[in-house]
Amino acid sequence: MLGQMMDQELLISSIIDHAARSHGDTEVVSVNTDGTQTRTNYSEVQIRAKKIGSVLIKRGMERSDRIATIAWNNYRHFELYYGISGAGFVCHTVNPRLFPEQLIYILTHAEDKIVFFDATFIPLIDGVRSHLPNIKHWVLMEARTAELASQHDWMEFYEDLVAEGDDDFNWPSDLNERDASSLCYTSGTTGNPKGVLYSHRSTLLHAMMSATPDVMNFSARDCLLPVVPMFHVNAWGSPYAAALTGAKMVMPGPGLDGKSLATLFNDEKVTIAAGVPTIWAGLIQYLEASGTKLPYMQRTVIGGSACPPVMIDKFRDEYDVEVLHAWGMTEMSPLGSVNNLKNKQLDLSTEAQKEIRLNQGRPPFGMELAIFDEDFNQLPNDGITQGDLYCRGPWVLDEYFLAEKGTTLKNGWFDTGDVATLDADGFMTIKDRSKDIIKSGGEWISTVELENIAVGHPEIGGAAAIAAKHEKWDERPVILAVKAEGSNITEAELLAYYDDKIIKWQIPDKVIFVDQLPIGATGKILKKELRAEYENVLIDN
Amino acid sequence: MLGQMMDQELLISSIIDHAARSHGDTEVVSVNTDGTQTRTNYSEVQIRAKKIGSVLIKRGMERSDRIATIAWNNYRHFELYYGISGAGFVCHTVNPRLFPEQLIYILTHAEDKIVFFDATFIPLIDGVRSHLPNIKHWVLMEARTAELASQHDWMEFYEDLVAEGDDDFNWPSDLNERDASSLCYTSGTTGNPKGVLYSHRSTLLHAMMSATPDVMNFSARDCLLPVVPMFHVNAWGSPYAAALTGAKMVMPGPGLDGKSLATLFNDEKVTIAAGVPTIWAGLIQYLEASGTKLPYMQRTVIGGSACPPVMIDKFRDEYDVEVLHAWGMTEMSPLGSVNNLKNKQLDLSTEAQKEIRLNQGRPPFGMELAIFDEDFNQLPNDGITQGDLYCRGPWVLDEYFLAEKGTTLKNGWFDTGDVATLDADGFMTIKDRSKDIIKSGGEWISTVELENIAVGHPEIGGAAAIAAKHEKWDERPVILAVKAEGSNITEAELLAYYDDKIIKWQIPDKVIFVDQLPIGATGKILKKELRAEYENVLIDN
Repeated sequence: MLGQMMDQELLISSIIDHAARSHGDTEVVSVNTDGTQTRTNYSEVQIRAKKIGSVLIKRGMERSDRIATIAWNNYRHFELYYGISGAGFVCHTVNPRLFPEQLIYILTHAEDKIVFFDATFIPLIDGVRSHLPNIKHWVLMEARTAELASQHDWMEFYEDLVAEGDDDFNWPSDLNERDASSLCYTSGTTGNPKGVLYSHRSTLLHAMMSATPDVMNFSARDCLLPVVPMFHVNAWGSPYAAALTGAKMVMPGPGLDGKSLATLFNDEKVTIAAGVPTIWAGLIQYLEASGTKLPYMQRTVIGGSACPPVMIDKFRDEYDVEVLHAWGMTEMSPLGSVNNLKNKQLDLSTEAQKEIRLNQGRPPFGMELAIFDEDFNQLPNDGITQGDLYCRGPWVLDEYFLAEKGTTLKNGWFDTGDVATLDADGFMTIKDRSKDIIKSGGEWISTVELENIAVGHPEIGGAAAIAAKHEKWDERPVILAVKAEGSNITEAELLAYYDDKIIKWQIPDKVIFVDQLPIGATGKILKKELRAEYENVLIDN
Repeated sequence: MLGQMMDQELLISSIIDHAARSHGDTEVVSVNTDGTQTRTNYSEVQIRAKKIGSVLIKRGMERSDRIATIAWNNYRHFELYYGISGAGFVCHTVNPRLFPEQLIYILTHAEDKIVFFDATFIPLIDGVRSHLPNIKHWVLMEARTAELASQHDWMEFYEDLVAEGDDDFNWPSDLNERDASSLCYTSGTTGNPKGVLYSHRSTLLHAMMSATPDVMNFSARDCLLPVVPMFHVNAWGSPYAAALTGAKMVMPGPGLDGKSLATLFNDEKVTIAAGVPTIWAGLIQYLEASGTKLPYMQRTVIGGSACPPVMIDKFRDEYDVEVLHAWGMTEMSPLGSVNNLKNKQLDLSTEAQKEIRLNQGRPPFGMELAIFDEDFNQLPNDGITQGDLYCRGPWVLDEYFLAEKGTTLKNGWFDTGDVATLDADGFMTIKDRSKDIIKSGGEWISTVELENIAVGHPEIGGAAAIAAKHEKWDERPVILAVKAEGSNITEAELLAYYDDKIIKWQIPDKVIFVDQLPIGATGKILKKELRAEYENVLIDN
């Protein structure tokens, strides 16, 4: 027997409709590519998103056609999120930091029909477009200028499309919540990039849960600034969750340096921001150098890679900003867990609370995490046992885009590629990437822990631990470290720093100082390159 | 093209599974019918709910069979919520305050197969059971005692069923999220009670959104005490939302007087409670008389009927408890709107904020409100225009249980029976029930406003405004008022109190002092009775 409640599909268009209805004049502030600002609101975003949607239909796009964006976080990108998905197409966000060959691969693989792009990327686009005969329209996300139009006759202009849009366009009523809504390729350190094809349903369930207090905690009293790019896992879903809750939205455009961000945070009274550790490192550096404070910021979501404990302390102790340590993956929409205390932990000492708050946190309802051994036996959630971390839930990938169904999951679980522990309170601690963890004499050593200790040293600016081959122990840890400016720290000094912080046999065998660490397109250290270069360093010696 | 995310059904069982996995030792505290306390936790609740579920199958229950509960808020009732729905049956919560004839009507209409009941209701059950031949099992929610077993040979015992349950029972895997999960009848002041048949999907979407900061704001740091009964719209969905977020849960059993509640609030460090205004009036009376404070309580959700402004002020100013003024209906699962400020309102004066916070608040995402005139033309959301309030969304009723599809909705909208205004910020103000509003010379006068003013007078203990027939104006307002203890307030004094608070022509024509006001089964004043008695009072004069 079915329940007798209204049967409404969970659609992305319904989010912006809600925002326009209940939060029409709530501001959406955008830094443009040229540095100027545009102030719009949810009502305007809805109107213009509908116009864009109507034009896509006029241009002959068919249901579920992929339409790409290569753009910063700005209001036109925000309109495209709703306009493309709302009108029944797939919003394919593309990372502009990819190599041209990867860009060509992705746009070809996705069979994109239109590309919307910011002015920054005109040279990039101009360099690849001859390799992309399937793209029917190249649309610059600007108003038309005579100069640009004459320089680039292949280019259309976003504001022309808006002007062409229908005033009375209605979102299609026959969309199913399981229809594809958006597409994002993983950076893929090995092999070709792989696409994750989100649905309206997965996007909405993710947005609803991400707004809850133990996840992002978004309300209509918030002002949100996603530093994490909208071309990277939909800025962690924040453009959906912000509109769903009616939070004021501030989009920083291309200026992600410490000064630009700090100014925007304080000018717009931003209450919550979200980004990766490298961005926050730059911000803190600027704040310290300039003596700037963050009087309005209440909390910041840090994810993308493990957050160094020193950064968490600095935000909390010196800037009174609560740090929400989060973990996720493109294949998980991306939110997998966020670190927040529980009722029974509120009476613990500050030190004990601090210790708990270092790990990657608890999964919200809708996300199930479990650890398994090599034979896929589930391991205990005792906080000690390490295992391969798998997940499942309604916003987790079922299969990569265009891949044959059933090639990725294992018994219905998605392999995160991480090694982790889980405790009885649901808290998860990432020990390492499965491929990075150091297997020394049958025991596992976490490179994440070794790196966290190293960067905790005031004279170390960055660090990467890798597994070096070893004749007796198979693998032993080696640290690649970048000295802080002006430091003369020695190998012996850094190794001594490990003494009281970790079990003796886990201390690295060697420190190699380097000028910089190789960083990939999503800001992560390319350990594969480091291993290729240094894995024989203990044997050659 | 479908998205390629995991296809998981949203099931009630998945909530308690999540709670057991991530919040296994989080306490569930319960006051039993005999006044003793039981302390259990989410892990135990899950284990026992599964045992109950397995026994229901053993007893031959078939998918979607209705199984009734007539019980207080206690841990066995909580287990039944999950055990019955999780195992694929419909948890039918029955209001014990109904008249025996209504009880017989409801249990017959729902075709219940089993009734679970608390000891309080043995006489009630014993009086009606001969009229209910379809009920196969009558289960007392207690452990077996020789005395009770010999006195009532028709009775089974809850703990015997738990003991009989399977340790390794798995929730059925073929449930669909649109399957019926629970059933609640509206009190129905006219005609027979009508059933609202919730689905797993409607229940989960409602629980997810109710946890968000602008609605109930539940987290794992909370300790929740629902005063609102679990037999009344599933205690506003809080038993689902609490487990979904891992909040500690305290269930007060039958003791809802001020002293019992205040003691429980402080002993268990309750952070959030939910209930109707009459309950809070009793609590405040006790707090004032005893000088008790509420040091742990952070917020209280008040709904069920309009909350008098004086009560909101008292909680905020004297007890530092934030009041979340909420509005909803059984047909809406029940949450329709909650009053919380927006970002742009944070800089307003305290007085201006107070004014905003008096109304019924904003609908969350998933709930759409609109006002219409008598010809079903949609009216503007200008904060002034009054109209009939309709709603729609995935947790709104589509049709009453067993009623022919299509008899209740109007163009896909549900008629709330309220008259309201909506403003451009989404805030809704209930002006009156459509059937109560006073139509005086073509203008509408809100009985709610007249009553709020009356109860704001320190010498008035309760008030009800009704439409009395009038020869010239069709209808004019009359106030039925209960004097506060020891008061000698006169009609002239109360009428004078209206002078600077309302437009002159809206001031009641007459005050009639009464000893008490008639209250229905859900705690609401029975205005229909008052009108029958007093509607000719202005004509007869």
